[in-house]
Amino acid sequence: MALQNGLLAAGDEESPAVLSEPLLRENQQELSLRRSLSNMTSQVAIVGSNLCPIESLDYEIIENDLFKQDWRSRGKTEIFQYIFMKWIFCFLIGLIVSLLGFFNNLAIENIAGLKFVITSNMMLARRFSEAFIVFVSSNLGLTLFASLITALIAPEAAGSGIPEVKAYLNGVDPPAIFSFRTLLVKIVGSISVVSSSLNVGKAGPMVHTGACIGAIMGQGGSKKFRLTWKWLQVFKNDRDRRDLVTCGSAAGIAAAFRAPVGGVLFALEEIASWWRSALLWRAFFTTAVVAIVLRALIDACLRGECGLFGKGGLIMYNVTSANISYHLRDVPPVILLAVIGGILGSIYNHLLNKILQIYNLVNEKGIAYKVILACCISISTSCLLFGLPWIASCRPCPSDTSEPCPTIGRSGNYKKFQCPPGYYNDLASLFFNTNDDAIKNLFSKDTDAEFHHSSMLIFFATCFILSTFSYGIVAPTGLFVPVIVTGAAYGRLVGMYVGFATNLNHGLFAVLGSAALLGGSMRMTVSLCVIILELTDNLLLLPLIMLVLLISKTVGDVFDENIYDLIMNIKGFPYLEAYAEPYMRQLTVGDVVTGPLQIFRGIEKVGNIVHVLKTTGHNGFPVVDEPPLSSSPVLFGLILRAHLVTLLKKKSFLRTPTPLGSDASLQFSADDFAKKGLGHGDQIEDIQLSEEELEMFVDLHPFTNTSPYTVVETMSLAKALILFREVGLRHLLVIPKVSGRVPVVGILTRHDFMQEHILNLHPQLQWSRWRRLRFQLPRLR
Amino acid sequence: MALQNGLLAAGDEESPAVLSEPLLRENQQELSLRRSLSNMTSQVAIVGSNLCPIESLDYEIIENDLFKQDWRSRGKTEIFQYIFMKWIFCFLIGLIVSLLGFFNNLAIENIAGLKFVITSNMMLARRFSEAFIVFVSSNLGLTLFASLITALIAPEAAGSGIPEVKAYLNGVDPPAIFSFRTLLVKIVGSISVVSSSLNVGKAGPMVHTGACIGAIMGQGGSKKFRLTWKWLQVFKNDRDRRDLVTCGSAAGIAAAFRAPVGGVLFALEEIASWWRSALLWRAFFTTAVVAIVLRALIDACLRGECGLFGKGGLIMYNVTSANISYHLRDVPPVILLAVIGGILGSIYNHLLNKILQIYNLVNEKGIAYKVILACCISISTSCLLFGLPWIASCRPCPSDTSEPCPTIGRSGNYKKFQCPPGYYNDLASLFFNTNDDAIKNLFSKDTDAEFHHSSMLIFFATCFILSTFSYGIVAPTGLFVPVIVTGAAYGRLVGMYVGFATNLNHGLFAVLGSAALLGGSMRMTVSLCVIILELTDNLLLLPLIMLVLLISKTVGDVFDENIYDLIMNIKGFPYLEAYAEPYMRQLTVGDVVTGPLQIFRGIEKVGNIVHVLKTTGHNGFPVVDEPPLSSSPVLFGLILRAHLVTLLKKKSFLRTPTPLGSDASLQFSADDFAKKGLGHGDQIEDIQLSEEELEMFVDLHPFTNTSPYTVVETMSLAKALILFREVGLRHLLVIPKVSGRVPVVGILTRHDFMQEHILNLHPQLQWSRWRRLRFQLPRLR
Repeated sequence: MALQNGLLAAGDEESPAVLSEPLLRENQQELSLRRSLSNMTSQVAIVGSNLCPIESLDYEIIENDLFKQDWRSRGKTEIFQYIFMKWIFCFLIGLIVSLLGFFNNLAIENIAGLKFVITSNMMLARRFSEAFIVFVSSNLGLTLFASLITALIAPEAAGSGIPEVKAYLNGVDPPAIFSFRTLLVKIVGSISVVSSSLNVGKAGPMVHTGACIGAIMGQGGSKKFRLTWKWLQVFKNDRDRRDLVTCGSAAGIAAAFRAPVGGVLFALEEIASWWRSALLWRAFFTTAVVAIVLRALIDACLRGECGLFGKGGLIMYNVTSANISYHLRDVPPVILLAVIGGILGSIYNHLLNKILQIYNLVNEKGIAYKVILACCISISTSCLLFGLPWIASCRPCPSDTSEPCPTIGRSGNYKKFQCPPGYYNDLASLFFNTNDDAIKNLFSKDTDAEFHHSSMLIFFATCFILSTFSYGIVAPTGLFVPVIVTGAAYGRLVGMYVGFATNLNHGLFAVLGSAALLGGSMRMTVSLCVIILELTDNLLLLPLIMLVLLISKTVGDVFDENIYDLIMNIKGFPYLEAYAEPYMRQLTVGDVVTGPLQIFRGIEKVGNIVHVLKTTGHNGFPVVDEPPLSSSPVLFGLILRAHLVTLLKKKSFLRTPTPLGSDASLQFSADDFAKKGLGHGDQIEDIQLSEEELEMFVDLHPFTNTSPYTVVETMSLAKALILFREVGLRHLLVIPKVSGRVPVVGILTRHDFMQEHILNLHPQLQWSRWRRLRFQLPRLR
Repeated sequence: MALQNGLLAAGDEESPAVLSEPLLRENQQELSLRRSLSNMTSQVAIVGSNLCPIESLDYEIIENDLFKQDWRSRGKTEIFQYIFMKWIFCFLIGLIVSLLGFFNNLAIENIAGLKFVITSNMMLARRFSEAFIVFVSSNLGLTLFASLITALIAPEAAGSGIPEVKAYLNGVDPPAIFSFRTLLVKIVGSISVVSSSLNVGKAGPMVHTGACIGAIMGQGGSKKFRLTWKWLQVFKNDRDRRDLVTCGSAAGIAAAFRAPVGGVLFALEEIASWWRSALLWRAFFTTAVVAIVLRALIDACLRGECGLFGKGGLIMYNVTSANISYHLRDVPPVILLAVIGGILGSIYNHLLNKILQIYNLVNEKGIAYKVILACCISISTSCLLFGLPWIASCRPCPSDTSEPCPTIGRSGNYKKFQCPPGYYNDLASLFFNTNDDAIKNLFSKDTDAEFHHSSMLIFFATCFILSTFSYGIVAPTGLFVPVIVTGAAYGRLVGMYVGFATNLNHGLFAVLGSAALLGGSMRMTVSLCVIILELTDNLLLLPLIMLVLLISKTVGDVFDENIYDLIMNIKGFPYLEAYAEPYMRQLTVGDVVTGPLQIFRGIEKVGNIVHVLKTTGHNGFPVVDEPPLSSSPVLFGLILRAHLVTLLKKKSFLRTPTPLGSDASLQFSADDFAKKGLGHGDQIEDIQLSEEELEMFVDLHPFTNTSPYTVVETMSLAKALILFREVGLRHLLVIPKVSGRVPVVGILTRHDFMQEHILNLHPQLQWSRWRRLRFQLPRLR
């Protein structure tokens, strides 16, 4: 329930104000019932109803006379330019995201690397307390910087950003998530916070970064920062912008994990709500650009031009054991690993959910509290990372290893830490390292004897707890890498305890453990599978990884939702699921339509329009022609708030209620009605009208979408949802079964399909056995 | 235009018969215009209009009172059983398909292997003419067998089957493509025809096989072959069956190429028209089963229990060169390869298209002609395969090869053929081998000097021509493997001519060449990319393969459509594209609705129903309540032909036109209205009614879908198409803008969206610049 304040700040709540001359519904009794229900709804602060002011987006083709004219007037060159620009944009997104991803990695590796080199050198000189102070204070400084810029400049940049992108692509429009400000804070903050040894990832922020770049391109640069170019401004509709955002997020994953195919699949499976084959192709193109650019940059790095960040390139954990062979007897331990992984994943989700709710209470109190929270987490993380390795006893270096032991520099499997020469500290090898290096250590083969199982247990428990506590701080934090590293530790643990029964090495167990925890927490299948394959570069693992992912996802689904859905719930986004819940078959569309319906006449008084726009938060209004314009009331179409505001702004009013005729197109260009950049739309409050003007009329006909999608009021809600969701609508008009005096009985928006809204209107469904089709095992919460 | 006969045989054409008491449209003039247009349409034999009798399928939720009752009465156990069965079915599909795929490979390798061993031994003994006779006659025998069973038992099994599956999943229902008969012929025929050294593949037939297994499971076994089990019969709707077919085709690709992720993506990108994330997961599960079973079976084979088929397992071309490194200077040759590959791919499509049209003329003449055609192709293929190697000069064996040279057995890179000891014939190494072995040879590294470029040129040209000529014969033939082998030869050729400029080896060029030709012909991106990666087991190639696929697909798209769409065009399937053509924005729904509308009243005379059903081919009819049942004519809903037939069959008629009330559910169970197995529906012709019964009435209300999707007649066709396609409809009712005396003005089916139909109604659009948005470079055809 928390984070809603940020969203609600953008607008007003739904008030039951009525038009001065409304076309009231015939059945007054029913209306009053509805109204009281609606009031009740707003009192209990249901997410669905209160969020109306968030602008939602649609894929619908807008059809009014002006747009049709515009489309007809486009020449072949313009269409060619349009298509060409789409590809250029995808290319640019790929290029920029890969450069950013590379820069990100470079910066993190070098900042964190410098920190570890300095502290390691101090440790070598046995100046332990000095090393501790440097370690804690540098981490604290980095975290403080990240949380300060996030809290002060762009609070939207906090967290991974994947839930926001997912909600945006579903049609919700959280304010400012794609602003240039957010982008900058996301990049700088992510580098800073990941370098500060917090247990957070950089993949999620990369996805958000990619999506930002896509969105900023789609809206033609950023006006505020004067980054606007004429040639950027060709995409004036939601659909193209959403496509670019999708491509951007695919590029983000591709750049973060060097997994181009995995990136496309991640965007397809997890992020996007609508998908077309043309989009698949364009996303593929974008990630191909990423793959090729990264490849070239890594080539440059391999020649040693990248500072501390050099060999191995980005994240790429080679676990190539030339011939991994596994047989039937290796399968039971793997199944066990997957089942427990699924349970752990859902416990992880559950914990994270609870902690985020608690954090929200803290964060609501103000910026200072947010920053202090982040600092506390940083200090305790630093203490744990520096303190826990002291528990582990020093282990003698193996004689047959190819690597130097103990490692003096920052990378390597055998960290010296406090140990005497010839010995290494296995816990320090994991803790006193970047997450990427820890994963590399855990995934590497021929290291079965390197770690003591008590060390691994400590590492696993610490990672598990730290990653749940670190995500919610006010800084750009990702979830992927922490889950991977925790899962790898978990997998090694399983390998240590049941490994005797198999001939899989512990590195493989670590990979499978990561897969199990990812599957149990994020509940993806194909995309995770491909991402892990691309990370580990070993296709022979495929059948085992598929098995693990299937089992852990199934087990996890028994208990709760995937992590991104949980976070979206907390943030209060009205996310529209693709499937209809069973109880929706029991309800008709008429059962959920609420509130007094605001209808405009074809030629409407300016005062009425202003009044309705000011007193309601609706974004679409039915337009009805009444006698004398037609013989009986006829539904003419649907007009959008944004278009009404544009109309009022232009002030081309009529003194008498007579049709405007065809000269509308002379006064307006399609540009006026084009989709504005996010948050750049005009507000009704900004428009000043004189008393005289308020008494005048305006002809809505040329600006009305004349063929909105409609459903009959007796249609089941499930069927209406399918239409709404599949076609990607924003408004769905409900028409009466029997054509009476009113040609439209209601208007459905995404909020009407929200479970909270429906269960509030029909509380008897709360305990109905129709509520869920999912396995109904007892829930943990 | 050919193959239509098979489809039209199933039903009658659309005749302009009118109801005895029709609710005629108000505008009689318009109606007669429409009717004449409709007649014209049927005279010129438009694909769209004539194919009405093909039953089409829909994803729509059918809502009539009976179904609602049924859904309500389902208990938790039944729902659990339903979900459980879905997974069990997927498991079974995976299991059966992987066993079949393995068996297929085993059979082919052993039959073809035996043939090559015998002929090779004869060649060793220099009994060349004897070897030739054995080779030709064994090939001829195998081809003859395959074409005979195909032509006589199941003509639907001819070809790859992918276009049919694709059309089915789009909503077209070509008769008998999923019968048990087709399945058997497909499996046996595919083994036989691939063993016969024809240049055809086994991947396409595997996809069809998988789809068949899915479909047969979905309809609860095969009645004809008495393979029905009670527990199989839980899925009585199109949606579940289609899901199983999708999973089956994914399993098919997974089994054919040992590419589980590629299989899922192939089903997603190329085959399926609708996709849900639940389906993604289930398809992934299915292919995971395939991957695991295949892995276990190959383990058994590696222990040498599979005859001639042993090491290497199924198709898996390892091109692992431990460290492939490529740099910027390697990119231009690769781009060149991709561009030419795209052009070659579209030439391939063009040629195949033309040849299939010619073959159809031959095939129409009768079974004998079909079989003779197949035999001719077989004999000429055998002659080429045996004859062409004689052109090549013998090459001395390299001294530094790890393989035995010349190879005496059947596998290996260096075939002896007619050469003296110590020499090998490079053309024979390619021709005198199974396609799989040829691909393995071409993909292998360190073999740059093995082939002479003239040999490669001959091989490429022969493969290119043979594969276009072989596909159309009356036998189960695939396209994938021929394109891969042709592309590999093409890639090696490019490597030979421009390889000096790069440090990529020729094996890599072969892989990239295959990718280029596949991309140029099949126009897939992600799925091909993943399939090639899984085939070659080398992720380092990824950026190059992505680059090649992108370029070759783009180049190919300039010239023509992808190969499966071309084949669907030839077969006359009314495939519904996901995107709206630009001219559709210029037309309204009212512009394309044709033919007299057949409307039933809520309580209709039996005679009228029988008459309409017998004289039209429509599958859905609007039901309208008129006075005295309502105050004005009201659209009550839509009733399906199948449900009407069921009603008539039950003969529960009324003597007077009075409402039936609630006892309908006593006489009928939801089972009666459940979706029948393919082609098992009752026909109106089978129902005998007496004169007296024809004069009675039937109450249609309880059996009518009371909330069909509707659009207003002024909606643009593009918008209606989006609704129709996204929601997966079969019928879309068109309602009038102004509520007049008739509450419905027409009914849209998929045929109304077909380009041929629309361009016939509005010939002026033929040359309109709005026809295509694709690049309009001059076309080859």
